[in-house]
Amino acid sequence: MINSTHDSTMNSWVGSANHPETDFPIQNLPYVYFDRSGADGDGGIGVLIGDAVLDLTRCREDGLFASEELGDVAWTLQKGAAVSNLFDLDQETLSAFRRRLVALLRDDCDEPTRKIVERNLISASDVRFDIPCEIGDYTDFYCSIFHATNVGTLFRPDNPLLPNYSWVPIGYHGRASSIVVSGTDVVRPRGQGRPDPEAPPVFGPSRRLDYEMEVGFYVGKGNDLGETIPIGNAEEHIFGLCLVNDWSARDVQGWEYQPLGPFLGKSFATSISPAVVTMEALAPFRVPAFERSEDQPGPLPYLSHDENEESGGIDIKLDVLISSQKMRNEGIGPHLVSRSNLKDLYWTIGQMLTHHASNGCNLQTGDLIATGTVSGKDKSERGCLLEMTFGGKEPIELPSGEERKFLEDFDEVILRGFCKRDGFRRIGFGECRGVVLPAK
Amino acid sequence: MINSTHDSTMNSWVGSANHPETDFPIQNLPYVYFDRSGADGDGGIGVLIGDAVLDLTRCREDGLFASEELGDVAWTLQKGAAVSNLFDLDQETLSAFRRRLVALLRDDCDEPTRKIVERNLISASDVRFDIPCEIGDYTDFYCSIFHATNVGTLFRPDNPLLPNYSWVPIGYHGRASSIVVSGTDVVRPRGQGRPDPEAPPVFGPSRRLDYEMEVGFYVGKGNDLGETIPIGNAEEHIFGLCLVNDWSARDVQGWEYQPLGPFLGKSFATSISPAVVTMEALAPFRVPAFERSEDQPGPLPYLSHDENEESGGIDIKLDVLISSQKMRNEGIGPHLVSRSNLKDLYWTIGQMLTHHASNGCNLQTGDLIATGTVSGKDKSERGCLLEMTFGGKEPIELPSGEERKFLEDFDEVILRGFCKRDGFRRIGFGECRGVVLPAK
Repeated sequence: MINSTHDSTMNSWVGSANHPETDFPIQNLPYVYFDRSGADGDGGIGVLIGDAVLDLTRCREDGLFASEELGDVAWTLQKGAAVSNLFDLDQETLSAFRRRLVALLRDDCDEPTRKIVERNLISASDVRFDIPCEIGDYTDFYCSIFHATNVGTLFRPDNPLLPNYSWVPIGYHGRASSIVVSGTDVVRPRGQGRPDPEAPPVFGPSRRLDYEMEVGFYVGKGNDLGETIPIGNAEEHIFGLCLVNDWSARDVQGWEYQPLGPFLGKSFATSISPAVVTMEALAPFRVPAFERSEDQPGPLPYLSHDENEESGGIDIKLDVLISSQKMRNEGIGPHLVSRSNLKDLYWTIGQMLTHHASNGCNLQTGDLIATGTVSGKDKSERGCLLEMTFGGKEPIELPSGEERKFLEDFDEVILRGFCKRDGFRRIGFGECRGVVLPAK
Repeated sequence: MINSTHDSTMNSWVGSANHPETDFPIQNLPYVYFDRSGADGDGGIGVLIGDAVLDLTRCREDGLFASEELGDVAWTLQKGAAVSNLFDLDQETLSAFRRRLVALLRDDCDEPTRKIVERNLISASDVRFDIPCEIGDYTDFYCSIFHATNVGTLFRPDNPLLPNYSWVPIGYHGRASSIVVSGTDVVRPRGQGRPDPEAPPVFGPSRRLDYEMEVGFYVGKGNDLGETIPIGNAEEHIFGLCLVNDWSARDVQGWEYQPLGPFLGKSFATSISPAVVTMEALAPFRVPAFERSEDQPGPLPYLSHDENEESGGIDIKLDVLISSQKMRNEGIGPHLVSRSNLKDLYWTIGQMLTHHASNGCNLQTGDLIATGTVSGKDKSERGCLLEMTFGGKEPIELPSGEERKFLEDFDEVILRGFCKRDGFRRIGFGECRGVVLPAK
C-alpha cells in the first residue's frame, strides 16, 4: 500500500538524501548491520539515509523510540543485535517504526530532536557493513524463464526448457556459510572439470568463472515444520530484499551437476549487498506478475491468487558492471554489461516462498531466498556471462579493448539495483561488489 | 589408532553397559544433548553408557574434570552448551577426556569417585534427546555406487551411471532447518507431482513416501573461506558419526529434480539419531577404502592418500526396520527390511570432506554431512524402498501380511547401526526412529 512515507515531495534535513540520484532518500530507509571502523563489534542495526548511516541502537539509548507503539522495536534494538530481530516484528509495528524514522529525518523535524538524531549519524564511508543476520538456510531459485531458456539452449538446443519448468518454481538449497558481504574478495575456486570429454577430468583453478545477477529476499516471520504458507499470506513473511551475486564456476558446475544439481560450482562464495530494502519501501513499484503466453499454463491453485496476479511483481532495474584491472589502471570507469528487471521473472517472490513451504518445510526468520539469475528477453538483459557470451563463444568487449568470455583475475563485478517511477523518488539497493583474486 | 580405551575385557560399574548386545559399552561413550524430562532447558551434554546418560555438566560442577589437561573440556561444558562446543577441541584433549570418562566409569573406579559419578547418571528413558548442536549447513552426498546404479537403472536402464560418478563425489546442499531428532513424527508432505505425463501435474499428499538409510558425520574443526582441507588431514576435521534418515517424497522429487536437484522432495524432514559416536570409538572398525574394479578410475590426486586407501572405510552394519500400525496392534515386532554396510561406499568420508572444501567452501564446526543412501550389491542391502521395490513395482511383504511399495501413514521406520568385530566390544549408534503421520 502506498502511503505518506512514499510522498516524493518529502525531503530530509540530511542533505545527501535529497539528491535525485541517491539510492537512499527518506522514502527508502533500508536496514543494515554495521561496525564502526576500527572498533570491531561497536555497531549494530542502522538505516541508510543519503550518504549516512543512522545508528538505531544509539537512537534507542537516546530515548527516540520510547513510545508504547514502538516498545517492541526498542526492545529489539539491543547492542549488537542482528537485523533479523526486526524481521520478526509484526507489520504494524514496523510501519509505525518507519513513520517514526521518517519523522526524525524529515526536514521539518524540530531542532532539539534533530540535534539528538544528528549525533547518531555516521558517514557510510566510515563504517564497515556486514551481512545483516545469521542466515540459517539459503535457497536459490531459477525463476527467470529467459535465463532458463538461454542456459537450456546451450545444453539442449532442441529442448531448452524442461517440461517441469512452467509448472514448478525450480529451486535448490544453497550454501549458507559462504555468503559474504559486498566488498569481500572472491578467491577463484579450484575444482574438477572435464574440458576434454575424451580425456580424464582435471582438477585445477576454474577457467569459466562467472557471476549471476540475482535478487534475494529475507524471510521475516517463519512457519513451523509441517505447516504451510498460503499464497495469499506469502508477503507477510517477506521482510525485504537485497542484491545477490551467485558466483558460479561453470566448468565445475557443468561436470558435477547431474543428477543432484549445483554444488561446488557455487558454494565457494555468494555475495550480498548489505542493505535490506523493505517491502514497504518498494510498494510504489509493484506490478502485475509475469504475463504468461497462451501455451504457458496458469499456476496451480496453491500458487494462484488474485493479488499475486495483480501486483506480485516488482519493477526493479538490475545492472551488472565489470571493471578490469586494466580499466582501473587507465582510469576507465566500470562498464555496464547488462540491465535486466525483476518484473520479468516467471514466478513472483510470493510464489517462491509459498512453494518452498508447501511441503511443510519450516522457513525461519533470517533465511535468504534468491531468485536465480534475472535475465530478460533481449541480449542486453542477460544476467550472467554464460548467457551473454553464449557459453564463451561470443566474448564481450570492455572499453579497455579487452575481451571477456568469463571473468579474469582482478576483475571486479558490481551489481546495482534501483526502482524508478514517475511521481516517486528513486529507491535503490546500493551495490554488491566483489573482486576476483587468483586461485591459491 | 586402537588403544587401551578399546580393551574388550574392560567392564563398567554401570551394569547395563556390560551386556554384550548393548550399543553403549564403556568402549563407546557417544556424546548426546539431552533435556531432563519435565524440566525443559535443564540439561546439556551427556555421554551414553549402557541404559544411562552421564550428565557431563554436573560432573564438571562436581569437579570431576578439574585437571590441567582437561581445562578446555571443563570450560566447554557450560550449562546448556551444545555438543558442537566439544567438536572444536583438539584431538589430544578429546582423547584425554575419553580416558578420564573411562576411568570414571570402569569397574575399578574408587568408591568415593563412583558415588559422585553415580548421582549424575540418569536413566536414558527419563530424558528427552535433542539434536546435538545447531547445524549450520547440511550436505548430502550420493556415495553408494550400488544405490546410484539401482536408482539410475530406474530412470536410464541403458546408462544407469552418469560419466561423472566414478570421478566426483556427487553431493548437494540439504535443508538444515528441517533436521529433527529421532522420535519426531514426520508429516506426510504435500507436493507437486505428475503421475500421468499426458495430464497436467497435480498437487497433493505424496503417494511415494520413502526413507533413506544414511550415515552422517559432524564437522569438528572447520576451515576458513578460500582454504582447503588436504585429504591427509581430512579426518582431523571429523568429530563423529550418527544415523540419518533422509525421508524422500519420490513423486515430488522425480518431477522437480531437473536440472537443479532434489528440493521439496527432501526438505520436509530429515531425522538423525541423537548419539554422536566419535571417530576414536570407531578406530577398531576401520577397513580399506572401496576396492575399485579395473574399469573404475582411481581417485584424482586431491582425493588420493595411502592412509585413506588402507583404512578410510568403516565397517558399520546398517539395519532398516519397519513397523506398521497393524503390526503394532498385533504385537508383531519391527521387521528387518535391509542390512547394508558403510564400508561399501565408493567414497570415504574423508574424501567427501576434502572434496567439499576443495573449492574453498568453508566448513563450520557442527555442519552435518551425510553419505547418501547406503546400499550394497545384494537385494537385501538396498537402503530405500525405491530400490527395494524397484520403483514400487515389486512390493515387499511385512509379517502382518501387508505389502509396501512405499510408506503408509503410521508406519514407523527404525534405523540401527552397529560395529562388530572379533576381539572387540560391539559399538552401536542407537536408533533413528520416525512415524509417518497423515498429510495435513
